[in-house]
Amino acid sequence: MLVPVLMCLAAGDVRGASGPTAEVVAAQLRDAAMAGHDIAYSWVSELTTRFGPRPAGSKSEQQAADWAAAKLRALGLENVRIESFPLTAWVRGSESARLIAPSTQPLVIAALGESPPTPAGGLEGDVVIFPTLTDLKAAAPGSLSGKIAMVAQRMVRAQDGAGYNAAVPGRTDGPQEAAQRGAIAYLLRSVGTDSHRQAHTGTTRYVEGRVPVPAFALSPPDADQIERIAALGQTVRVHLFSGASYVPDARSQNVIAEVRGRERPQEVVLLGAHLDSWDQGTGAIDNGTGTAIVTAAAKLIRDLPHRPRRTVRVVLFGSEEVAQPTAPGHTFGGHSYAVNHQAELANHVLAGESDFGTDRVYMFALPSVAAHGEFARTLLRVLTPIGVLTSDRPPEDFGADVTPTVEAGVPPFALSQDGMTYFDIHHTPDDTLDKVDRAQLDQNVAAWAALAWLAADSDVDFRPRTAPGDGAVKP
Amino acid sequence: MLVPVLMCLAAGDVRGASGPTAEVVAAQLRDAAMAGHDIAYSWVSELTTRFGPRPAGSKSEQQAADWAAAKLRALGLENVRIESFPLTAWVRGSESARLIAPSTQPLVIAALGESPPTPAGGLEGDVVIFPTLTDLKAAAPGSLSGKIAMVAQRMVRAQDGAGYNAAVPGRTDGPQEAAQRGAIAYLLRSVGTDSHRQAHTGTTRYVEGRVPVPAFALSPPDADQIERIAALGQTVRVHLFSGASYVPDARSQNVIAEVRGRERPQEVVLLGAHLDSWDQGTGAIDNGTGTAIVTAAAKLIRDLPHRPRRTVRVVLFGSEEVAQPTAPGHTFGGHSYAVNHQAELANHVLAGESDFGTDRVYMFALPSVAAHGEFARTLLRVLTPIGVLTSDRPPEDFGADVTPTVEAGVPPFALSQDGMTYFDIHHTPDDTLDKVDRAQLDQNVAAWAALAWLAADSDVDFRPRTAPGDGAVKP
Repeated sequence: MLVPVLMCLAAGDVRGASGPTAEVVAAQLRDAAMAGHDIAYSWVSELTTRFGPRPAGSKSEQQAADWAAAKLRALGLENVRIESFPLTAWVRGSESARLIAPSTQPLVIAALGESPPTPAGGLEGDVVIFPTLTDLKAAAPGSLSGKIAMVAQRMVRAQDGAGYNAAVPGRTDGPQEAAQRGAIAYLLRSVGTDSHRQAHTGTTRYVEGRVPVPAFALSPPDADQIERIAALGQTVRVHLFSGASYVPDARSQNVIAEVRGRERPQEVVLLGAHLDSWDQGTGAIDNGTGTAIVTAAAKLIRDLPHRPRRTVRVVLFGSEEVAQPTAPGHTFGGHSYAVNHQAELANHVLAGESDFGTDRVYMFALPSVAAHGEFARTLLRVLTPIGVLTSDRPPEDFGADVTPTVEAGVPPFALSQDGMTYFDIHHTPDDTLDKVDRAQLDQNVAAWAALAWLAADSDVDFRPRTAPGDGAVKP
Repeated sequence: MLVPVLMCLAAGDVRGASGPTAEVVAAQLRDAAMAGHDIAYSWVSELTTRFGPRPAGSKSEQQAADWAAAKLRALGLENVRIESFPLTAWVRGSESARLIAPSTQPLVIAALGESPPTPAGGLEGDVVIFPTLTDLKAAAPGSLSGKIAMVAQRMVRAQDGAGYNAAVPGRTDGPQEAAQRGAIAYLLRSVGTDSHRQAHTGTTRYVEGRVPVPAFALSPPDADQIERIAALGQTVRVHLFSGASYVPDARSQNVIAEVRGRERPQEVVLLGAHLDSWDQGTGAIDNGTGTAIVTAAAKLIRDLPHRPRRTVRVVLFGSEEVAQPTAPGHTFGGHSYAVNHQAELANHVLAGESDFGTDRVYMFALPSVAAHGEFARTLLRVLTPIGVLTSDRPPEDFGADVTPTVEAGVPPFALSQDGMTYFDIHHTPDDTLDKVDRAQLDQNVAAWAALAWLAADSDVDFRPRTAPGDGAVKP
């Protein structure tokens, strides 16, 4: 844990104005977090216990936002406010699925987010299995008339989540591809890496204002079972029911709080995470821990004897889960923030989001202009003792909520987490508090506090020398 | 894998009549099984895929029995027959649970087997939490009037399943203890060692012909959640619904098959396992693998150039899961077998059951009279290369189905499996084929084939010198 901080006193752009250098303070923040500060764990414990699931636009999401705002004030953060925005909420109803031929067997499924309900009596059809989405796309128009299309692609386990990006088009685009070929419903092997009887939900794409057919994720063992029965040469017929519904006049909200900068408070280092969750679990790792990490990092900075030069702003976004791939009317928290704060974005110096579970941070990535300078070298010295590398590439995955902000020209950073087990429980009923490892949670807080402090106490300009963004938020 | 078989030629009571010694044959059986014979895996794969869940008294249990009988004949076993018996079947209906105060949250539950339904609109009440069943028993009469009692005891992970025996009274006796004190329903933290959003079902005790109140297992994370909310000082109120029902004129059945002995065919070595399963999963490890192990062991013996002296009998029991603690009218497969075959039991030389999942066998236990003789030494020599110890105690847990037979005086044996992970998925929806490890399954077959062969080809009398059983089957 000891770092040779005294060797770094000459580091120009990260030196504090007086007292200890910024690097010494960053190391102190890191060590305070690693010592087992209880802020983060108690935050995620209380959040998930009091409010349970927090679907976008729900009462529980709103109650959690009110609680979060009060909690942020109690922690001593400033300018705490809630910014509300409208959306059409999707509500899971009762749902069921069963094999009806060649034998009767229950199936574990979950309607995909935004999926329309089935008819009241359900629907049934023979299942046509496609190994991948590409195979489905190769099917002839009309060839699935009256059928239920199923894509059986398996997600690959990979540390950086690359397997998710490869599999998720089966979820986002599968329903419309099936519908275009006449299918009456769509089944997807869950986009997940586990083998439990739990289905991984997630949103799917709107086409002309709606998801075209009822769409469901199958638990991995149920997808296996259907494939094995088909391999016996038998036609698989299933019955599907979903009572999902929509609430057109719902509202969600972002919660914002700050540690105001002492010299240039208008300059903002944005730390984001989303407060909403899918409805099956209690949103512990997606994304209760993210909100806990950025809150605890800001709280540790707030408790320092002096503030950073710039402002550290925490944004707990609402309604993130329905933002992928496209929220109806683009009304998700990340978009709402970028629109509301458009005039400020030119003064946002850096933005990042914690939304990849609770496993340890193993790498950081900075905008190209800062990736090889003294700022990066200082950060590396501070984070090396807690097992963090520096990336040789600029941030690529920086989170759905900060994307509109980044697209408007704000430089992103990433603190990459080990995602080897994240997709075992992502978007399932199993996303509950017992999955949170306190030590790894604290390591995340350490990394976030150190990076946020160093960026906020510096005068580094992270923007490219020729700015690619035009400062405008995409519609 | 090599064993010094030639050193053992003098072993008197295990020598074959001609040709290779019994020990050499046992080692050959072991090696054939370990080489990756596909009999066991293909059995459990086909059984679970074709029929899915096989609850006692169901159509799928009956279809599985018909399939098993045909399969046993096709494998070359003899005297294949199905012995039917009546029972009252219990059928899970739709079921649900949710917190209704202090917040609204869904709960993952499963009605316990034999639990009566709730009223059609469900029931609701405040939850009174007891750390253990002992605490519930200490509550005063009437003190739970209108309440829902919950026992929150955690099961301890232990290799031999000792944690199950310690926790299961909470399931068997909890409902009646709660009802006696006025409770309107009963909740139990699942008897299991995992932390997934799946509830472990299992039977509970009848009192005067019925389970007195609706009773449910909570998934471990849901039990945690209720305890945490209560720890915030808030009263937890829940709504429960179960549409469970009973089928009074159902039937189950045992499937019996043999490798007839060449010298004393009336003497029987009984290898048991149960064909029924709980309804949430497909009964892969409980007990598809058990039926696969004993079938594959018998098939390997059947394929030898000459038969053993005694008969090896495979019994695939029906309706085992409702036998714990007490089946209504005692009509479960194990009891039906002992009654039907009462006249033969004096000639049953040894009986064992495979019903503890699919993990490796690590120890065998023999009746006291044989535990230290040449039979045990020979068996140890054959099984040591595949990682099996000998126990210093006679068999204690030998399975619910052979218990009536053992109680009538038949000596039991045990091939103890490593149960460290068994209760992670026991009685949950997760009991599916993907949990079966082929290599460990083959190791089980090796141990069963070797023991069964050695016992059947010997003339060892495993009965105590003064028989404790009177030969009668308990009513």
